[in-house]
Amino acid sequence: MTATTGEQSLRVETVEQSRLLALLRDEGPMSRVELGERLELPRARLTAEVSRLADAGMVESGGPAASRGGRRSTLVRLASDLRLLAVDIGATSVGVAVTGPRCDVLAHVVEDCDVRTGPVAVLERVAALADVVLASNPGRLLASGVGLPGPVSFREGLPVAPPIMPGWDRFPVRDQLASRWRRPVAVDNDVNAMAMGERHAGVAQSLDELIFVKIGTGIGCGIVLGGRVYRGVAGTAGDIGHVRIDEYGPACACGEVGCLEAYFGGAALARDALTLARSGRSTRLAELLEERGSLTAQDVGAAAGAGDFAAVNLIREGGRRLGQVIASLVSFINPGMVVIGGGVAGLGHQLLAEVRSAVYRRSLPLATGNLPIVLSELGDQAAVIGAAWSASERAFALTH
Amino acid sequence: MTATTGEQSLRVETVEQSRLLALLRDEGPMSRVELGERLELPRARLTAEVSRLADAGMVESGGPAASRGGRRSTLVRLASDLRLLAVDIGATSVGVAVTGPRCDVLAHVVEDCDVRTGPVAVLERVAALADVVLASNPGRLLASGVGLPGPVSFREGLPVAPPIMPGWDRFPVRDQLASRWRRPVAVDNDVNAMAMGERHAGVAQSLDELIFVKIGTGIGCGIVLGGRVYRGVAGTAGDIGHVRIDEYGPACACGEVGCLEAYFGGAALARDALTLARSGRSTRLAELLEERGSLTAQDVGAAAGAGDFAAVNLIREGGRRLGQVIASLVSFINPGMVVIGGGVAGLGHQLLAEVRSAVYRRSLPLATGNLPIVLSELGDQAAVIGAAWSASERAFALTH
Repeated sequence: MTATTGEQSLRVETVEQSRLLALLRDEGPMSRVELGERLELPRARLTAEVSRLADAGMVESGGPAASRGGRRSTLVRLASDLRLLAVDIGATSVGVAVTGPRCDVLAHVVEDCDVRTGPVAVLERVAALADVVLASNPGRLLASGVGLPGPVSFREGLPVAPPIMPGWDRFPVRDQLASRWRRPVAVDNDVNAMAMGERHAGVAQSLDELIFVKIGTGIGCGIVLGGRVYRGVAGTAGDIGHVRIDEYGPACACGEVGCLEAYFGGAALARDALTLARSGRSTRLAELLEERGSLTAQDVGAAAGAGDFAAVNLIREGGRRLGQVIASLVSFINPGMVVIGGGVAGLGHQLLAEVRSAVYRRSLPLATGNLPIVLSELGDQAAVIGAAWSASERAFALTH
Repeated sequence: MTATTGEQSLRVETVEQSRLLALLRDEGPMSRVELGERLELPRARLTAEVSRLADAGMVESGGPAASRGGRRSTLVRLASDLRLLAVDIGATSVGVAVTGPRCDVLAHVVEDCDVRTGPVAVLERVAALADVVLASNPGRLLASGVGLPGPVSFREGLPVAPPIMPGWDRFPVRDQLASRWRRPVAVDNDVNAMAMGERHAGVAQSLDELIFVKIGTGIGCGIVLGGRVYRGVAGTAGDIGHVRIDEYGPACACGEVGCLEAYFGGAALARDALTLARSGRSTRLAELLEERGSLTAQDVGAAAGAGDFAAVNLIREGGRRLGQVIASLVSFINPGMVVIGGGVAGLGHQLLAEVRSAVYRRSLPLATGNLPIVLSELGDQAAVIGAAWSASERAFALTH
């Protein structure tokens, strides 16, 4: 790893440097004149901060700026050899990406990996994949970001009582990776990372209030308010997977019954698909079961796409329940956009239609008057882009 | 009114003055030394700001400070003759209070008043009541705050499409009162005002994340995040009265069916009480109906208090539905406290027990682990204290 981490000090010394780096990340190369205007800094002060950042290897010259009359100035940009590592640990897969300083993905590898094999084994895999992507995209590593599929104490950088991650409770993920990579590490819930990914580079760019609903093996929700992830008092804000739909509903992995996740998570869909196939109510799913011996949520999507009536109904029914919960969320939060992502979002437009219909019917007209409900644009890159963004926030923060 | 408004300029000139005034409001008189420490201001700068505020008549000397060794210093406090006006317009009543500079209520009058008589008539009543309370508590008026029982555009200071306020849509409440009183006026939704009242002087003091649920004629919710009212993109955040509980439920005043408010608002309880009385299922309510010719939500509380089985059941059933909605809200927002207020909150501990049971059973354990669910402490003063607080925010804000 030492090959990829420079010996230069990558410390941020003033609030102005911190704001300057974030601006170059979010909006790209800028002239000194424009930087001064955007940061409301006098010329001399700006010049001093830029040259200090250049000396520290954080920014560099990026070619001539478009002329605004007078002497041509050069653009300032983030140093192009800066690297961020982004890790997306899911229930059944692990993804590691390396990005440039603007969170642009340079390489991204994804492998099957069962999170239940525990933190030691999974983090070894992560380290090995990180070596691979960094070797193919050498540079100076600034920081890393990690998304985990469960509740996370952001302050402590570790998972707290995660329902689907046996062995991970309070395992010091941040500290362990930070000491391995000798760089700052930010650990967050994967849905929060996805929400910030879509806000930085996806469908929700520049929106300050949005909710991101992930439908994967489980169901979760990231809430962005005022441009930041809102976490709540204990860090559990946005937990919609375990909102109880029905006291007498099916059992959920969390130990309760009738949770939304028990109706419409990936695991619930796979369970219902099996029932439909075995009972003969879905010919298409029965065929798929025959071929492969098992069924997944993706098979429900495929069957629905092929016009299978029972599969279409399954998605409609689930979309209606999900829409009911999202409608409440919209009434409470009054967001500017709802983004739906995660594996089961591959069910696509049928799902979206049901959710929209429920939300537009059940929420307050004022709250839905100007409310786009859309699918994630970044797909399986949302989480790594968000994790890279979170890493850059750590790297660009004042460190003293 | 001119008698109560001084000719002195009550303008705030710097961010430091603004912070200083808010600190004296929230925590009371302080020595210069303590003020300097709390505001992180050097001694000379603090002294200059304090004397400018004293010259402007905003602060005054408040007697000797407790000794910390060395020369005794004097306390600084908000000028005791400063006044804030607070107006609480409800569906069926109007309340006007005058407070001192720390939002302490000096006088509070409440009269029956039907909001449906329209803004001109209601605001005339408000002005007359304001004259009364100000005359009995003379001083220099700083600013006024108004709470309205419907959606408000906080930025424009006017109600927007309020369901129970015919004739008020986009009526310029702020501008009209500001030109009458020649002082700044802040207009907000009444539930937001109640939430900030409880945070400033009630059960939620100093909590940064809380939700306040009002159960009056209607049902609403004020959300405080990071110590401020959270309003959402269109200002409708917290609208839980019109979350749909059942698509085939009773008709609601908003024109939809099955809203929470149609089950458990004051109007819904009065309707159900009438049914119980007439059908003979509640002897106590039948007696009350006989006596008075009509029934209110308060009668249900009285009957339940007297042990009437049907009335107790009505409260239990409603509390269960309300608890279901609050449980979702707790899962989404993960607040530090839930406060329940408004007229129907007079149903008291039976209601509270149902709500608690629903929330603790249905929300995520991490979110409810340390979550007090309590009744409002300020009762019918919550809204005026919050409105006064909102007025002081306007008065203490930088005005240039």
